[in-house]
Amino acid sequence: MISKVNVGLIGAGRIGRVHAETLAYRIPEANLVAVADVFTEAAERCAADYQIPLATSDPQVIFNDDAINAVIICSSTDTHAQFISQAARAGKHVFCEKPIALDLAVIDEALEAVEASGVKLQLGFNRRFDPNFKQAREMVAAGKIGTPHLVHIISRDPAPPPVDYIKVSGGIFLDQTIHDFDMARFLIDSEVEEIYAIGGVMVDPAIGEAGDIDTTVVTLRYANGAIGTIDNSRQAVYGYDQRVEVFGSEGSVAVANNIPHTAVYSNADSVQSAKPLYFFLERYMEAYLAEMKVFIACIQQDTSPPVTGIDGRIPVVMGLAAWQSYRENRPVKLSEIS
Amino acid sequence: MISKVNVGLIGAGRIGRVHAETLAYRIPEANLVAVADVFTEAAERCAADYQIPLATSDPQVIFNDDAINAVIICSSTDTHAQFISQAARAGKHVFCEKPIALDLAVIDEALEAVEASGVKLQLGFNRRFDPNFKQAREMVAAGKIGTPHLVHIISRDPAPPPVDYIKVSGGIFLDQTIHDFDMARFLIDSEVEEIYAIGGVMVDPAIGEAGDIDTTVVTLRYANGAIGTIDNSRQAVYGYDQRVEVFGSEGSVAVANNIPHTAVYSNADSVQSAKPLYFFLERYMEAYLAEMKVFIACIQQDTSPPVTGIDGRIPVVMGLAAWQSYRENRPVKLSEIS
Amino acid sequence: MISKVNVGLIGAGRIGRVHAETLAYRIPEANLVAVADVFTEAAERCAADYQIPLATSDPQVIFNDDAINAVIICSSTDTHAQFISQAARAGKHVFCEKPIALDLAVIDEALEAVEASGVKLQLGFNRRFDPNFKQAREMVAAGKIGTPHLVHIISRDPAPPPVDYIKVSGGIFLDQTIHDFDMARFLIDSEVEEIYAIGGVMVDPAIGEAGDIDTTVVTLRYANGAIGTIDNSRQAVYGYDQRVEVFGSEGSVAVANNIPHTAVYSNADSVQSAKPLYFFLERYMEAYLAEMKVFIACIQQDTSPPVTGIDGRIPVVMGLAAWQSYRENRPVKLSEIS
Amino acid sequence: MISKVNVGLIGAGRIGRVHAETLAYRIPEANLVAVADVFTEAAERCAADYQIPLATSDPQVIFNDDAINAVIICSSTDTHAQFISQAARAGKHVFCEKPIALDLAVIDEALEAVEASGVKLQLGFNRRFDPNFKQAREMVAAGKIGTPHLVHIISRDPAPPPVDYIKVSGGIFLDQTIHDFDMARFLIDSEVEEIYAIGGVMVDPAIGEAGDIDTTVVTLRYANGAIGTIDNSRQAVYGYDQRVEVFGSEGSVAVANNIPHTAVYSNADSVQSAKPLYFFLERYMEAYLAEMKVFIACIQQDTSPPVTGIDGRIPVVMGLAAWQSYRENRPVKLSEIS
Repeated sequence: MISKVNVGLIGAGRIGRVHAETLAYRIPEANLVAVADVFTEAAERCAADYQIPLATSDPQVIFNDDAINAVIICSSTDTHAQFISQAARAGKHVFCEKPIALDLAVIDEALEAVEASGVKLQLGFNRRFDPNFKQAREMVAAGKIGTPHLVHIISRDPAPPPVDYIKVSGGIFLDQTIHDFDMARFLIDSEVEEIYAIGGVMVDPAIGEAGDIDTTVVTLRYANGAIGTIDNSRQAVYGYDQRVEVFGSEGSVAVANNIPHTAVYSNADSVQSAKPLYFFLERYMEAYLAEMKVFIACIQQDTSPPVTGIDGRIPVVMGLAAWQSYRENRPVKLSEIS
Repeated sequence: MISKVNVGLIGAGRIGRVHAETLAYRIPEANLVAVADVFTEAAERCAADYQIPLATSDPQVIFNDDAINAVIICSSTDTHAQFISQAARAGKHVFCEKPIALDLAVIDEALEAVEASGVKLQLGFNRRFDPNFKQAREMVAAGKIGTPHLVHIISRDPAPPPVDYIKVSGGIFLDQTIHDFDMARFLIDSEVEEIYAIGGVMVDPAIGEAGDIDTTVVTLRYANGAIGTIDNSRQAVYGYDQRVEVFGSEGSVAVANNIPHTAVYSNADSVQSAKPLYFFLERYMEAYLAEMKVFIACIQQDTSPPVTGIDGRIPVVMGLAAWQSYRENRPVKLSEIS
Repeated sequence: MISKVNVGLIGAGRIGRVHAETLAYRIPEANLVAVADVFTEAAERCAADYQIPLATSDPQVIFNDDAINAVIICSSTDTHAQFISQAARAGKHVFCEKPIALDLAVIDEALEAVEASGVKLQLGFNRRFDPNFKQAREMVAAGKIGTPHLVHIISRDPAPPPVDYIKVSGGIFLDQTIHDFDMARFLIDSEVEEIYAIGGVMVDPAIGEAGDIDTTVVTLRYANGAIGTIDNSRQAVYGYDQRVEVFGSEGSVAVANNIPHTAVYSNADSVQSAKPLYFFLERYMEAYLAEMKVFIACIQQDTSPPVTGIDGRIPVVMGLAAWQSYRENRPVKLSEIS
Repeated sequence: MISKVNVGLIGAGRIGRVHAETLAYRIPEANLVAVADVFTEAAERCAADYQIPLATSDPQVIFNDDAINAVIICSSTDTHAQFISQAARAGKHVFCEKPIALDLAVIDEALEAVEASGVKLQLGFNRRFDPNFKQAREMVAAGKIGTPHLVHIISRDPAPPPVDYIKVSGGIFLDQTIHDFDMARFLIDSEVEEIYAIGGVMVDPAIGEAGDIDTTVVTLRYANGAIGTIDNSRQAVYGYDQRVEVFGSEGSVAVANNIPHTAVYSNADSVQSAKPLYFFLERYMEAYLAEMKVFIACIQQDTSPPVTGIDGRIPVVMGLAAWQSYRENRPVKLSEIS
């Protein structure tokens, strides 16, 4: 067992800084020893804030450092696959934010590099580590709802990302829904075989002009006969709306939003309670910590990460199928993709 | 204004008796003066229980009675259209349980008879009168959620009906989902244009052997671009699950189940609250009363019923489209039907 | 078994009309045959509204009518005891609104008349028949919370009664808290031995000028060692607040308010749900029906009413103890009263 | 402004370790440089776990260290006052767990030492920093409920402490209720003037044999006329029950428990949700962090701590009054104490 895992961070943007803080202060088993960002200033600010010894604009410095056991890839999506391959070839375990890439061939190349090298790869599907969803998953896995019949996932952001981001994001199905595709696979023990997606531009015409949609309902047909739906909006004015429900032969389990406080205020007009936590940094902070703890523990104890390369690939296939379904207005089998 | 509306009831089964009790004891403006049922005994029992002066096995007696202003049709579905036509020709206002018929030509004939006679026709889509759904509808209509983007309807029965009933019911889309098709139209001000239905036999193989399915998810595309889903199961072991959610540009409104009491019990194992009210007689008793009050008031005040013949026809079109979609596994436009 | 119970109503005010409607339309086993009110007009209006054959300003007419089996006393409090005695002597069963009287000697005289005559007497502590409180009581009785340790009763009105009413009401402890004293006895199987009451005039100075208070917290010491509190306010601006909680060695049961609908509205400002049902007519309609059904059934089946004369007397003792405690600012034993 | 606050920890028991972890990993502005515990081993384990440079069994080492700016006192209650005085004389700011002492003269001596030295003193009433209670307090302070009339505090532990601890704890009012006395003062802007306490031994006879009680209800009379209650039990089998409600002329605010996840499970038997978080380490972890952040910030920015010496003294007066009230079964004015 490795007593301390030396970690290099690639990408010091918003999510990179979340992992930096986690690794620096919350996981004693990890040493965050280097941070790289194409913007030197971002790397340096991150290093200063989280007491990281080395800041660089060149990720190669991290790949070349023999003392580093693992890398956390939080750079822009178009660099993920290449950095995974480089890290794998350098013998470093990899934690990578989703998605691996928007192109299956590119993903497959990265996954082959990982397999060839034998390093561990964990994908950043953080919601699996959220206490609410985890509880739902565990209840389903324990058979408490019997045979699953129906799965509903609601996942609405409080506000859309900048249009410039949307343009390079792969669109809603590969950027936002991808988390829900993973959730759909996580909640019950069956793969999705067919997808039907409808949607539209309801939030902001600029999103439509960028070639994307901002609202969608995706219907899923699972191999075991179960049916799922995913509801996505880029803008829920009341905050981050993240719920699931799984219904089966013996009951159901439903997960509600988290709220910042439980105070309920009653006056002559109404009874008011808190809105959901605003966005992913608020809602999933505990999940970000948990996934990173698991990643570090997998390295220390030489066990397999719970979210693997194939778990990173399948949601991309689902996203591509959703786009095809949306464009052709028909159910599309996953087997039609790739 | 008619001071008292004389009413004849046709069909003294479960729902017929609900209306009988309502008319006999809860609506002073109505006199329930006759009941007809093909089973004489049922008519007589109903008459005895609710102090109805006349019981008969022949509905013609009711149509021929000049003192009767209105009829309530609660007989089996295959008789609805014919009784509507007869009542209309006899100049009697009609309240009819859903559906009018399973065949559009038959429906149209009945609606023409109604139109020709000028009598009022109200369809028994009771859920519109449920305080929860009514509140949701009113909030949407008042613009509180802005432009509607998404509609979700969950409608699960606690237990399936007898297979013999299922065989003549028109199947899940025309028997169960039909209520939700009406709800989908009621909640927002737009018609559904296209339907995609998937489903399966998950509850009881006997339902499948009868040519029906017992679980379905229907996706709706509204004319205004909004998207809806309907989730139906013939068996939710925890009771009647009747919820809706409408999400829009300025917020959302969600309706939960009704429960028999608010007691919450906490012990060393868990925190437990009451299951939803068991089934429609428990959940919708207030709605049954409200719809009948409105029907009687429309007659008294010579106003238009809020649920009309066309409101009875469109959900049948939707049900037929859903069956076609299910069978062909593709989205079906309502314009393809009829 | 009496097939139909003939009932005379004394007092056609607000609560009298509630019972009139219930008896006229909801309880087929009862015939409401007469109504008396000191205001002839009120009696006549009530008779017209609920199809009661006889209206009179003289209750003696009811006592003298041999066809009448039972009387419902809803007249002003100062007449309750005398009417109970007269009814008893006339051999009529009695349902009487709370309190029997504000004076224990007067109460005892009435109870003696009841006992001497052998008629049944049921007190109008309607809350025992509310589904929420009934469920709490049943859970406690079934041992689900183990040995009861703590009882909390919250009972706040939405608005104070007119000051003229307050002046003759016996004050908050005998008018409002009296319901909660009964609830305190109903919830667990032990009598209260000692009471400590503090309070003040917080809602309306006019209530203080009338010699009453409008807000109070009463602490109860039960014979079995359990401790209770009652929280009363004459004005909760958000509506009728009626909750209880019983806590014991094996768990707790807590009862929340009833709401008119379950719709939850989320917007950019907050998450809003419905206020509690406004007041007793809304909240306890089901309880009023249930208590009257039980009373009629007790007569038909010759069984004992569940809320007896002594159940009417003890809360008055508690109210008197509370007043003494409030005035002397010390715990007062019930044994000090009477 | 001090860039980094050097902190010494005295007492490495359960709560000491909570603060150690917080200071070591969650507050970059603090350096935890030393830990003292009368049990050398405990000090050393704490030092090892949280990377504290110095471990000692002698707190004097900390007082004598000129580099140390502040001390955190988490030792046994009987040492608090003396350590406060020593720290103050050594010019070190003090964060001290409650209570300062069980004896007012001892408290006063410590507070005088603090005042003479000019150091800052913050008391460990962590619940003020809980997001739920803070929200309630802020709503009250913002006038959202108008004039406060009623305050209810429910505070039940999941399990009693060891009897050996109880024996030296000062009893329930000085050990458990003391937190609620502080909460009672925190929630509204008025001091408590009079206390009436009743209680008993309901959980464990051994607690009674140790001279303590395990269940109590305390009634509070505030200077402004408001009334409060505190409900304490040493054992709620369903977990840590920590709720408050403040009711006023314009509305109310009520705070519910925190739960580990929002999953709701419905089956044929019931609808089940999660029990409250188990105990203070689970429920108040965020509050422990927040109070420590505030303490460090007060030192850095030379501002006054929000929970002062007098805030530490008054709840002890209240506890002593409660004991006297309980023993004499009468309301006791705080002015009778001291």
